[in-house]
Amino acid sequence: MKFNLQHKDQTTKARAGSILTDHGEIQTPIFMPVGTAGSVKAVHQRELTYDVKAQIILGNTYHLYLRPALEVLEVAGGLHKFMGWSGPILTDSGGYQVFSLADSRKITEEGVMFQSHIDGSRHHFSPESVMDIQRSIGADIIMAFDECTPYPCDWSYAKTSLELTQRWLRRCKTRFESTGGRYGYQQSLFPIVQGSTYKDLRQDAARFVADQDMDGNAIGGLSVGEPAGLMYEMTDLVTDLLPEEKPRYLMGVGTPANILEGIALGIDMFDCVMPTRNARNGMLFTSEGIINIRNEKWKMDFSPIDTGFPSHVSSFYTRAYLRHLTISKEMLAAQIASIHNLSFYLWLVGQARAHILQGDFASWKNTMVEKVSRRL
Amino acid sequence: MKFNLQHKDQTTKARAGSILTDHGEIQTPIFMPVGTAGSVKAVHQRELTYDVKAQIILGNTYHLYLRPALEVLEVAGGLHKFMGWSGPILTDSGGYQVFSLADSRKITEEGVMFQSHIDGSRHHFSPESVMDIQRSIGADIIMAFDECTPYPCDWSYAKTSLELTQRWLRRCKTRFESTGGRYGYQQSLFPIVQGSTYKDLRQDAARFVADQDMDGNAIGGLSVGEPAGLMYEMTDLVTDLLPEEKPRYLMGVGTPANILEGIALGIDMFDCVMPTRNARNGMLFTSEGIINIRNEKWKMDFSPIDTGFPSHVSSFYTRAYLRHLTISKEMLAAQIASIHNLSFYLWLVGQARAHILQGDFASWKNTMVEKVSRRL
Repeated sequence: MKFNLQHKDQTTKARAGSILTDHGEIQTPIFMPVGTAGSVKAVHQRELTYDVKAQIILGNTYHLYLRPALEVLEVAGGLHKFMGWSGPILTDSGGYQVFSLADSRKITEEGVMFQSHIDGSRHHFSPESVMDIQRSIGADIIMAFDECTPYPCDWSYAKTSLELTQRWLRRCKTRFESTGGRYGYQQSLFPIVQGSTYKDLRQDAARFVADQDMDGNAIGGLSVGEPAGLMYEMTDLVTDLLPEEKPRYLMGVGTPANILEGIALGIDMFDCVMPTRNARNGMLFTSEGIINIRNEKWKMDFSPIDTGFPSHVSSFYTRAYLRHLTISKEMLAAQIASIHNLSFYLWLVGQARAHILQGDFASWKNTMVEKVSRRL
Repeated sequence: MKFNLQHKDQTTKARAGSILTDHGEIQTPIFMPVGTAGSVKAVHQRELTYDVKAQIILGNTYHLYLRPALEVLEVAGGLHKFMGWSGPILTDSGGYQVFSLADSRKITEEGVMFQSHIDGSRHHFSPESVMDIQRSIGADIIMAFDECTPYPCDWSYAKTSLELTQRWLRRCKTRFESTGGRYGYQQSLFPIVQGSTYKDLRQDAARFVADQDMDGNAIGGLSVGEPAGLMYEMTDLVTDLLPEEKPRYLMGVGTPANILEGIALGIDMFDCVMPTRNARNGMLFTSEGIINIRNEKWKMDFSPIDTGFPSHVSSFYTRAYLRHLTISKEMLAAQIASIHNLSFYLWLVGQARAHILQGDFASWKNTMVEKVSRRL
């Protein structure tokens, strides 16, 4: 994997770059649609490429490990072939899902024992097994196994947790470096900066992660309920300490405004279920602001969903029609809204990139943050 | 509307023809995907055109009348514009849905009083109101308001019901002929042959319907639980009495085999929820037979769903992947299976047409009925 830093904004910490993987190039900053169990929900693979214009997608190790399970993925030749997606894939470590199982998991130094949400069966994830699993899934970018602390979280728990995450990172790295890609292409491991909302812990975590000298670095444990201001503060602090010549990934973020602010703070990669999950609930992110398509006000609005950017579904279908489908619980509602929201997210990061390259990112960003945050 | 009978098979009663409507030409025999509430479930309009290759779709008056309701459809300029489908549309009369509400409807000479399944609100359908509603929806082909008898049904009820259907047909026709299309294009009314499974009633009904001299004729009240043999017998009887120079529509039919047999009996048009509803339950109709995609046997089958006919989704996605999506309750499963099944149905009727034109329909049909009926 090769990161090429093409341009740095003069006013903010925003950067434009590109990541070259064996499955193709990713132009950064980038948003990665979430394909939980081998499918970006309600979106065909062809639509991901031609409508959404996704450059990389994310898969969830926890879900894929349980279903279809590694035996299927390995015979298929990895997730790319299994699902028919030829672009880059990043997998999370499964840690986030496992920790959120709350009552049905137990953390030890060795790893995490947990019960499947599907059939209650018992499983164990360790830093080593999670490296092996992601090798088997065949992700281009593999995430370290870490503990993602909740918010709020007291300092001493956050510190203890961070130390565990750091010990686990060493084990992840050792295992990762002693194994190879299963399918003939290169895989990269990204370590994750934790440390909750504590400056000292975040700084310690960022330095530790930077010292590992991996292909890219991630920031986790944010966007878990803390005020946006705190998220930006932590991000700002951490991006100052992470190496400039490596891509930086802010995990699980966020709203269009969060992403624009994250870019301004030096983040290159984002992922979030919001555009797809909220789409399924009738919430649209548009170039003019946020729409709750269930509202009566759209009942007779026969104008297109959004003409502010090039997107077939957004200009083909009307708000009144999408409202009708949503209220009638037609599956097509989720299909349209998911493609629309994802297309909008990808367009937005593409615009951010263009403005970084042309040198007016800061002013564009400020106007855009206001625009995309208002409720229509 | 103009029906052009192009070729009659020598061995069977099969015909190849074309129906010219103000929204384009339909090549018969044809299958019409069901778009209940203004959406063919799980299928984008673009996919209907380019993947499924639908030439006409069906809308349900009962559903559209309740939601989005006529006030919305009228302002939109009719269903075509509302949903973004520029090809022909046929609407049922709403009778079938209303009668199936059982406890919450009451039939009188005047019409049917019923309660909405959505909010329990009370509504009334009469032959006249149903003509007006379908005028407002803007269907190219409007169906008469009839009583669809259940199976089994005793002779005296079937006769009484048929007489009501015939009185209602006169009222439908009077209303239809005293009104015009709302949106500048022509609409046609098709009467419906009822009479349950009784030869004498079916013959009487067919003659009555033929005498109305409308643009096309339909056969209703079949495929409601009776043995397939009885359905074919009634169809055979009725197509002998319906005029040759008008298209014949067998309502709510059926499996691929039912459709092929229906074509052999002189039917030109079919509709059924089966390809889409069964798709949502994991049942695939393929060129080699029927697949229950949930079966363990497909778990490691990385071959395409069906390569027997040209279809993007059917050759792009594998059986193992579709099985995984189905079992994981991913929406994409229904999307893939719906497009696949509909594409297969449209391909099948297209093949039937080609074989009628080239003169070997009967032998092709017999081979195909066996092929498409077996379980893989």
